[in-house]
Amino acid sequence: RRPDSRPVRSPARGRALPWNAGYAEIINAEKSEFNEDQAACGKLCIRRCEFGAEEEWLTLCPEEFLTGHYWALFDGHGGPAAAILAANTLHSCLRRQLEAVVEGLVATQPPMHLSGRCICPSDPQFVEEKGIKAEDLVIGALESAFQECDEVIGRELEASGQVGGCTALVAVSLQGKLYVANAGDSRAILVRRDEIRPLSSELTPETERQRIQQLAFVYPELLAGEFTRLEFPRRLKGDDLGQKVLFRDHHMRGWSYKRVDKSDLKYPLIHGQGRQARLLGTLAVSRGLGDHQLRVLDTNIQLKPFLLSVPQVTVLDVDQLELQEDDVVVMATDGLWDVLSNEQVAWLVRSFLPGNQEDPHRFLKLAQMLIHSTQGKEDGLTGEGQVSYDDVSVFVIPLHSQGQDSNGP
Amino acid sequence: RRPDSRPVRSPARGRALPWNAGYAEIINAEKSEFNEDQAACGKLCIRRCEFGAEEEWLTLCPEEFLTGHYWALFDGHGGPAAAILAANTLHSCLRRQLEAVVEGLVATQPPMHLSGRCICPSDPQFVEEKGIKAEDLVIGALESAFQECDEVIGRELEASGQVGGCTALVAVSLQGKLYVANAGDSRAILVRRDEIRPLSSELTPETERQRIQQLAFVYPELLAGEFTRLEFPRRLKGDDLGQKVLFRDHHMRGWSYKRVDKSDLKYPLIHGQGRQARLLGTLAVSRGLGDHQLRVLDTNIQLKPFLLSVPQVTVLDVDQLELQEDDVVVMATDGLWDVLSNEQVAWLVRSFLPGNQEDPHRFLKLAQMLIHSTQGKEDGLTGEGQVSYDDVSVFVIPLHSQGQDSNGP
Repeated sequence: RRPDSRPVRSPARGRALPWNAGYAEIINAEKSEFNEDQAACGKLCIRRCEFGAEEEWLTLCPEEFLTGHYWALFDGHGGPAAAILAANTLHSCLRRQLEAVVEGLVATQPPMHLSGRCICPSDPQFVEEKGIKAEDLVIGALESAFQECDEVIGRELEASGQVGGCTALVAVSLQGKLYVANAGDSRAILVRRDEIRPLSSELTPETERQRIQQLAFVYPELLAGEFTRLEFPRRLKGDDLGQKVLFRDHHMRGWSYKRVDKSDLKYPLIHGQGRQARLLGTLAVSRGLGDHQLRVLDTNIQLKPFLLSVPQVTVLDVDQLELQEDDVVVMATDGLWDVLSNEQVAWLVRSFLPGNQEDPHRFLKLAQMLIHSTQGKEDGLTGEGQVSYDDVSVFVIPLHSQGQDSNGP
Repeated sequence: RRPDSRPVRSPARGRALPWNAGYAEIINAEKSEFNEDQAACGKLCIRRCEFGAEEEWLTLCPEEFLTGHYWALFDGHGGPAAAILAANTLHSCLRRQLEAVVEGLVATQPPMHLSGRCICPSDPQFVEEKGIKAEDLVIGALESAFQECDEVIGRELEASGQVGGCTALVAVSLQGKLYVANAGDSRAILVRRDEIRPLSSELTPETERQRIQQLAFVYPELLAGEFTRLEFPRRLKGDDLGQKVLFRDHHMRGWSYKRVDKSDLKYPLIHGQGRQARLLGTLAVSRGLGDHQLRVLDTNIQLKPFLLSVPQVTVLDVDQLELQEDDVVVMATDGLWDVLSNEQVAWLVRSFLPGNQEDPHRFLKLAQMLIHSTQGKEDGLTGEGQVSYDDVSVFVIPLHSQGQDSNGP
């Protein structure tokens, strides 16, 4: 089956997404039975809780108090189970985490004590000196929500005898800011008329080399004598014994030479270059959700200790941008970015949007067009042969609609 | 004794420094008996070694093969011993480390094997794919040299029954690039007519919070039950028990709330804000040399496990700059930066140099002037009361002289 015969799928046109965002996806070219990418989006209704007389948290007004919006992409591996669980769970974890700190979110400055009681008269000054702002509580809530969701996935997969993991890329709009939380190798960029701004960076065995090597240095037993912590330009072999070869250890950003001994011939903790880099020969990402049971093939060596579920969070102050009609955030799984650069995606956005301002489905069509551009269509852009055989999922989020209510649920 | 009665000292005018750099220092206002700052500079003569027939390294041509220049500042604490040792030792460690990889330094691309023997035909391609360049070997040599020097200092201090530690900030010019290696809270900036570029960033308990908390998470025994790993806006007390207060743990960049229990009342691993931040209540820096014996007062708790001797290295491609007469690098210990901002230093540089181009001692005078500006002189710049009572040491390194041989030794 040629990849270009795979269908590009989108939600039914009647179902508007928050902010009239566009979404499209394509299933991989028979790499797996199911689409291992999953997506979720919706309103984030944060209720207000108040500190009750019993020093217990009571939900006093169950109606929503703060409203945010949420878009998320999950790229599964080892089956779709973790990605499906994440798509069904993470927004609830996040809502719960945000509700737990909502009093701090709406204060001019987060109070030292969530109760608002001031135990030390200079408490506000201590908070001020640390530079703690409401946005730090949202970042903290995102960090906690990813971890909580990871625990839920671990329990659910174990209980149902399933396996798998997924990356997670989440955009949350709240109080005039857009938070982008990333754990894995998906990517979000802001595209404006005169600007391309990355809103996430990929977290892979290559970009997190020092953290991963450091852990293996501290806990050598995690490698069970089967792997070497050191990085070499290629896997070493018998002929290299006794030679001085280029290497890097956990504390090094530069390179040096060491004399090769037998233990250096083991398989490397991180092996391969760029998109091919693998952790313990197994995994291409270093952060994500799930993978609690994942082991190196035919061994007892676990991957999970090397993986982080906590995301990297960046904050875009949307209220500070002088927004223009065609300013969008493009979020996509690695299948898109493997074949299109940020510049190519921006070029496609800028070519398409200005001529289609009247079309209510323009962001949907743009998402579909971006996916088509990964399928080797001759569009004068990517050239032939630039084909993604991976799952690809894309959100196009128009920032200009912010605040205007979408016509969806 | 008023601080302004302290003398500003410089090398005798006959002794030119590499590149005609200027140097000046002032001793602290009776904070300690000795100047705890130390400085060193000179030519770095790197000899060529060749791989001998016996697979042993032989020095074939003892004359210098590559020439670099070296400027270094060491800010001591707990006595001057470590800073003095570092000033006498680090350049030798660095020369040795560079000589060990000199064949790789002068190759178009560092060879996979230092011998130059190609064991696998595609070895150059592997090195190319990893993007390994000669400058990575210099970075690696700087990293190794700092670690080696730290070990030497540890042995020497123990043997002589002395104690102490120091920060280290090193600038090395080699093959048209300037490498700035920093371990501590000194700072180097590039000042040009239209540009101020930081060449280092401070490594303190505050900037390295996550690394330090992470270590305490992995090895809780390092805190001996006396400290809490968590960060709070202020030290907690009995009245906070049971309240939900702002906190951060090792994996968090954002803030969240936790209910205070008794163990949260312990003294924090990192305490205080900005310049006042202390590691284990003791040390204001998180990287440096020495301190092998340093313990928290009246306890057995060691500081050294939390300290790194490995520096952060930045590379300035001097050959790519269109150098102008007045482009300088200003390197100084924290005493200067405590009272002068990068912008104020740049303003002083730009006010002084253009009118003094004929003065052969202008960089020396500029270094002295920068020190005077920390002593509360009314110069219309820092205002009154902006006085540094700390040791202050300053190098002003003119980049334009690069390649021209200095008239010194």
